[in-house]
Amino acid sequence: MTVTIIGIGLIGGSMAIDLKKRGFADKIIAVDANKLHTETAKNIGLADETSDLTEGIQKADFIIVATPVDATHKLLVHILDTVTNQTVIDVCSTKYGICELIKNHPKRKNFVASHPMAGTEYSGPWAAISHLFDGKSTIICNKEESSEKALKDTEDLYGALNMRIIHMEAKAHDVHAAYVSHISHISSFALALTVLEKEKNEKHIFNMAGGGFRSTVRLAKSSSDMWTPIFSQNKTNVIDVIDTYIEKLQAFKQGILSGNNSEIKDLIEDANKIKRIV
Amino acid sequence: MTVTIIGIGLIGGSMAIDLKKRGFADKIIAVDANKLHTETAKNIGLADETSDLTEGIQKADFIIVATPVDATHKLLVHILDTVTNQTVIDVCSTKYGICELIKNHPKRKNFVASHPMAGTEYSGPWAAISHLFDGKSTIICNKEESSEKALKDTEDLYGALNMRIIHMEAKAHDVHAAYVSHISHISSFALALTVLEKEKNEKHIFNMAGGGFRSTVRLAKSSSDMWTPIFSQNKTNVIDVIDTYIEKLQAFKQGILSGNNSEIKDLIEDANKIKRIV
Repeated sequence: MTVTIIGIGLIGGSMAIDLKKRGFADKIIAVDANKLHTETAKNIGLADETSDLTEGIQKADFIIVATPVDATHKLLVHILDTVTNQTVIDVCSTKYGICELIKNHPKRKNFVASHPMAGTEYSGPWAAISHLFDGKSTIICNKEESSEKALKDTEDLYGALNMRIIHMEAKAHDVHAAYVSHISHISSFALALTVLEKEKNEKHIFNMAGGGFRSTVRLAKSSSDMWTPIFSQNKTNVIDVIDTYIEKLQAFKQGILSGNNSEIKDLIEDANKIKRIV
Repeated sequence: MTVTIIGIGLIGGSMAIDLKKRGFADKIIAVDANKLHTETAKNIGLADETSDLTEGIQKADFIIVATPVDATHKLLVHILDTVTNQTVIDVCSTKYGICELIKNHPKRKNFVASHPMAGTEYSGPWAAISHLFDGKSTIICNKEESSEKALKDTEDLYGALNMRIIHMEAKAHDVHAAYVSHISHISSFALALTVLEKEKNEKHIFNMAGGGFRSTVRLAKSSSDMWTPIFSQNKTNVIDVIDTYIEKLQAFKQGILSGNNSEIKDLIEDANKIKRIV
């Protein structure tokens, strides 16, 4: 099967590696608005061919749209206008807007809305790695709007990537994604901004950064091109979860200010319950 | 050399392993208010002997106080009252209160205030691991208040643990520790509380938790016994950094609410500068 990957960055590139290696794809075609990305993808062996969008779609049996969510919104109608019987998936972190956008498109059934829950803080084809998706979950949204063939193709693809498939309504997906994924990124971006503002002398950060700081600030290295449109697409849910997050920080502040150690202890022990889950 | 470790948990126990293995200590004596901890330490080979505090001090050449900061405050004067020429160090995350407490003690020179910047989210002797400190930094505070012998002993100990020694005033240490370490823990505790409140159905968290969430929420598993007294000891600095952190979150909220994508992008790109440092 020929797989065309539109947007050959961390996610698209990592898919390319394992789909080829595991026999799902005979040929990978890379399409990207950034020529450096397609050339790099070819040079480092992520793709067999590079091409423009039109040819990439024509030659493909399966199309993965792995661009940031704003670019996906711009491209998807055109891609569906152009496909014949190919299956098309996206991999964005927000799903409701995309599903709404193409709800009434005559080729809606060719499309499967998906969100593989995997990534790193790096981006671009250089960041692509094998095994990125192994053992993780992928969400498929509104599956009743996709054809059986498109769903079967998509299940086979995620099967080759060793992912566990979970089904969810697009709207519910976006709520959960805000709670579990998007707020983690905001908490980490805000942490980096705080430390950079407070510590004018970067040497202190470097000297004193233990494993804990490194782990909580890791996501702050994530790409603005990817995350800006996610936050703006998932505005209501993200605002709602930021508000709750600030409330929890205020509770800590209050406990510390008032010297109420049993209040702080209770908050920490409630937070410790996350151990049961992750 | 006989090393007595008072508080044989994650930090004390991890020190015990490498100090013995690397020949710094011929014998490790474990002292702990929790009998289960001393017995476990002996059973799993962290300590050669267990003893009570008085005997532990008498028999030691070197004493490591590795209890939570509130217990250290309670024990340290008594320990210094009792030592003859042994070197005593603590390993707490806050240093100013401890240095003030024993500033005028006749045995002040036997004591070195230190903070090895290493740890994990686990606690107790079961959490002790080899190589925990390798390649990390340790802070020594107010070294002019310690004797040359005590400093030399402490440098040898941290040398055996493969740590890089940094000198700092206790007051400055507490400011930097709030910025780089303490706020990471609060951000992570608050994240766990937020997600647990928002996601009443834990299955969703389990299903959707990717590497990003796991990494930012990791510290939320940390012990309340250890962290409650740290926040309360370092109250002013911690409150100050929580305030800045909330401001940064408000800036994100404002950018998202007003649909100002270039503002969000700028915030993310400023946060990305942390890449240069960690």
